[in-house]
Amino acid sequence: MNQTLDKFKEHLKKMRQYEQAVCLLNWDLQTMAPKKGVESKLETLGFFSTESFKLSTSEEYGAMLQELSRPELFAQLDEGMQLTVKRGLRDYQRFQRVPQDFYTDYVTTSARSEKMWEEAKRAGDFSLFSPWLDKMISMTRQYVGYMEPEKDAYEVLLDMYEEGMDSATIDRIFDEMKEGLLPLLSKIAAAGMPDLSALEGHYDIDAQKKVQNMLLSYIGFDFDGGAVAESEHPFTMGICHGDIRTTNHYLEDAPLSAIFSAIHEGGHAIFEQNIDPVFVNTAAEQVNLMGLHESQSRFFENILGRNPNFWKPVYGQLGELLPQFQTVPFDVFCRAINDVRPSFIRTEADEVTYCLHIILRYEMEKAIFRDHAATDTLPELWNDKMEELLGIRPANDAEGILQDMHWSDGSFGYFPSYLLGSIYGGMFLNQIEKELGSLDPILAEGRVKEITAWLNKKIHRYGSLYNSRQAVQRVCGCEISAAPLLSYFNKKYGEIYGF
Amino acid sequence: MNQTLDKFKEHLKKMRQYEQAVCLLNWDLQTMAPKKGVESKLETLGFFSTESFKLSTSEEYGAMLQELSRPELFAQLDEGMQLTVKRGLRDYQRFQRVPQDFYTDYVTTSARSEKMWEEAKRAGDFSLFSPWLDKMISMTRQYVGYMEPEKDAYEVLLDMYEEGMDSATIDRIFDEMKEGLLPLLSKIAAAGMPDLSALEGHYDIDAQKKVQNMLLSYIGFDFDGGAVAESEHPFTMGICHGDIRTTNHYLEDAPLSAIFSAIHEGGHAIFEQNIDPVFVNTAAEQVNLMGLHESQSRFFENILGRNPNFWKPVYGQLGELLPQFQTVPFDVFCRAINDVRPSFIRTEADEVTYCLHIILRYEMEKAIFRDHAATDTLPELWNDKMEELLGIRPANDAEGILQDMHWSDGSFGYFPSYLLGSIYGGMFLNQIEKELGSLDPILAEGRVKEITAWLNKKIHRYGSLYNSRQAVQRVCGCEISAAPLLSYFNKKYGEIYGF
Repeated sequence: MNQTLDKFKEHLKKMRQYEQAVCLLNWDLQTMAPKKGVESKLETLGFFSTESFKLSTSEEYGAMLQELSRPELFAQLDEGMQLTVKRGLRDYQRFQRVPQDFYTDYVTTSARSEKMWEEAKRAGDFSLFSPWLDKMISMTRQYVGYMEPEKDAYEVLLDMYEEGMDSATIDRIFDEMKEGLLPLLSKIAAAGMPDLSALEGHYDIDAQKKVQNMLLSYIGFDFDGGAVAESEHPFTMGICHGDIRTTNHYLEDAPLSAIFSAIHEGGHAIFEQNIDPVFVNTAAEQVNLMGLHESQSRFFENILGRNPNFWKPVYGQLGELLPQFQTVPFDVFCRAINDVRPSFIRTEADEVTYCLHIILRYEMEKAIFRDHAATDTLPELWNDKMEELLGIRPANDAEGILQDMHWSDGSFGYFPSYLLGSIYGGMFLNQIEKELGSLDPILAEGRVKEITAWLNKKIHRYGSLYNSRQAVQRVCGCEISAAPLLSYFNKKYGEIYGF
Repeated sequence: MNQTLDKFKEHLKKMRQYEQAVCLLNWDLQTMAPKKGVESKLETLGFFSTESFKLSTSEEYGAMLQELSRPELFAQLDEGMQLTVKRGLRDYQRFQRVPQDFYTDYVTTSARSEKMWEEAKRAGDFSLFSPWLDKMISMTRQYVGYMEPEKDAYEVLLDMYEEGMDSATIDRIFDEMKEGLLPLLSKIAAAGMPDLSALEGHYDIDAQKKVQNMLLSYIGFDFDGGAVAESEHPFTMGICHGDIRTTNHYLEDAPLSAIFSAIHEGGHAIFEQNIDPVFVNTAAEQVNLMGLHESQSRFFENILGRNPNFWKPVYGQLGELLPQFQTVPFDVFCRAINDVRPSFIRTEADEVTYCLHIILRYEMEKAIFRDHAATDTLPELWNDKMEELLGIRPANDAEGILQDMHWSDGSFGYFPSYLLGSIYGGMFLNQIEKELGSLDPILAEGRVKEITAWLNKKIHRYGSLYNSRQAVQRVCGCEISAAPLLSYFNKKYGEIYGF
């Protein structure tokens, strides 16, 4: 037993070292690598990815997984190792069933498809992307068909990004959301739009970086266990235990963008920074539960960061670092960060209409994978759903179906995680307030780190040991429900918009 | 033939990919990695270094090198490949002779010794470092003894950092330097010190970074083929062809530090950025000729960057970016960047006294490796030489023998390269002026890139295809001599100090 386990741990460590090289290369490509070095770095990335893939599908690794799965040995493993063996065996078996040639073809086609999507988006021309989307749909269907031949393709996809989740559950809670949101949005629309011109101006980017660092420290990001860099799109990446990094991007005329991206990515990073060190080199360290991950980033960004009380202790500092804010009255600022109105682009949407952007994508994905909707009918379907859900119709596909990258590389089934994250966040809020009392005074008194500590203790430390459903059950003692998020929305926006 | 060559190239590429990972990890550790991730990253670095070492000492690689060295095959290789086989075989044979246990012990002891040096330097206490220095001297002697059992240890060390160089040549040209420098320094001392208080003040670090980028572009650094980051000590690192990076550090009260470090590291980077792409994945791409490398960085920093004419076209921009310079008259600035006076610390020394700092270290190294000077007598010997060469005596070992890291990790024989670099630079200057005319009008008219282009064409493109001695011979048509550097010093400082 001990010998197999030691050998297994050695193998895991080696896998992690290759993965660390792959992460670092990816990080570098997105934050630092100059244009002329990209080709060589992509080649090296390909080399190390292949070495890493070989390790995770080697016969030796498979034999160790089989051995450690034997009930009498499995029972002796600690919970981190049990998860590692269970997930490892599942993935090993899945990958074994995918023909090597098909896999290479799928990866290459994804990369090309992504490039074509970029081009089509730039040109605002769906017809350029349509044949590639068509190919990605059929290849993705084939890919998951190899991995899990007995199961419905879309269920497998959902499970890939949010283990343990299924469309029956999502249908139930997304319907709940839809029903609750439509009347809320009518009320908000009736209340009229605030005047936000006081925020217009030029905001120095070096100063925006200082604001970002101040806010990250304020919410509990550990600069000794992470770093921040600049990239085209903000993201968070765990390089290894003790090194969880985020990026940001800065707009000279829209300082709220970097501010809320910082808090959002900070939420992702704080999650991974606080995983218990006992899980180092186990599967629990890798949080592939996208809904749970989003629950933390969206909780920090929206439920904490857009609460006016969050800003009471730091609004003065914000004005010191970015003097333009000294002329923006506090209540105008609070209206600006809670400005709810229908818009076309998901990534720029407010926290309320955002939910409908996700429901739209979820319904589209079901139409694709369940109803086999023809690819060339998808733009029209998108626009119809947009009109139905948000009352606005895109003038072109760039602000419609072409806006997101996800489908271009085959990440079907990913979108629902965003809204699931918000919904879990609503449930966690509910539970925090039961245990710690109302957020408002905690935030107003500058004690946000007490909330961070609660999340660390209840959620972060376990990494992905429990899937999202299990985590919600453990933390809140009940099944997933959209009701807490809806009630948070109604209370908050009722106060802001006065209804 | 073709089959062996293809296999050999495949092997080289694999070696480069591991080296690229090692470089990137090192880069990351020095520029970005947070404290808590260091341990894990060092472990991964160790893993990839070992894999890389295995590839460069594998029997398969050795057999290919032997095969390609056969005269009839060797003759068919292009010059980049010939160099790769020649250097590869030499290093392969050297490493084969080093016992594995000894090598591991040497590497580990180096790392520990470096740590102890840091501690001793902080404490200003040589006795903490003395036993480690003693061990590093004897182990380094043993190490090169394994590699080249027939040769004098110090000659092997000199050749490691500056291939083809020997102590007879260095003795000759360093004596030439010493003889020429001592009267020059007396004249400068007699002329009195300038008043530089106009430069005192606080210089914004973000603005210093903008100045750095402006200067790097100005001298020809290609931001599409490189990047700049911040680190404790400035350095340059080639990650791969098309990605040559430098770092800088910034002092709020001393803006000249970052300015001249930028130009210095820029010189290193411009060298590697302009190596001909035909040498990718050959030994010529790796410029281990430290003297030749320093000749470029020191040429840009001193011979170009400290020439008043260099600043004429950009002094206005400097004042726009760092407004404090608007109140510094141009001639005061030019005096400040050419302030020559004896000082204790090599890395802060001006270009003239710097030469004597290196001669001191070279004489110390000969005393250690040739005369077997006892380690505990070395601090006194250092101080005596300092007094002899520069007329000042360190008050403690932190500003004496403990100041440099090089000896702590066994890099004996490295120091002479710095002065050799300046000497080659003087010769290149001489040759440029023969071919292009005086530097002064070229710089004053903002045509510095014509000089960069000359260096690209004559030196940079070949990488390390020719060693320094060969490069000097090819470019200048004569043997290495200190005379051009001395005559540059005498002319320049005669004008500045009026003698």
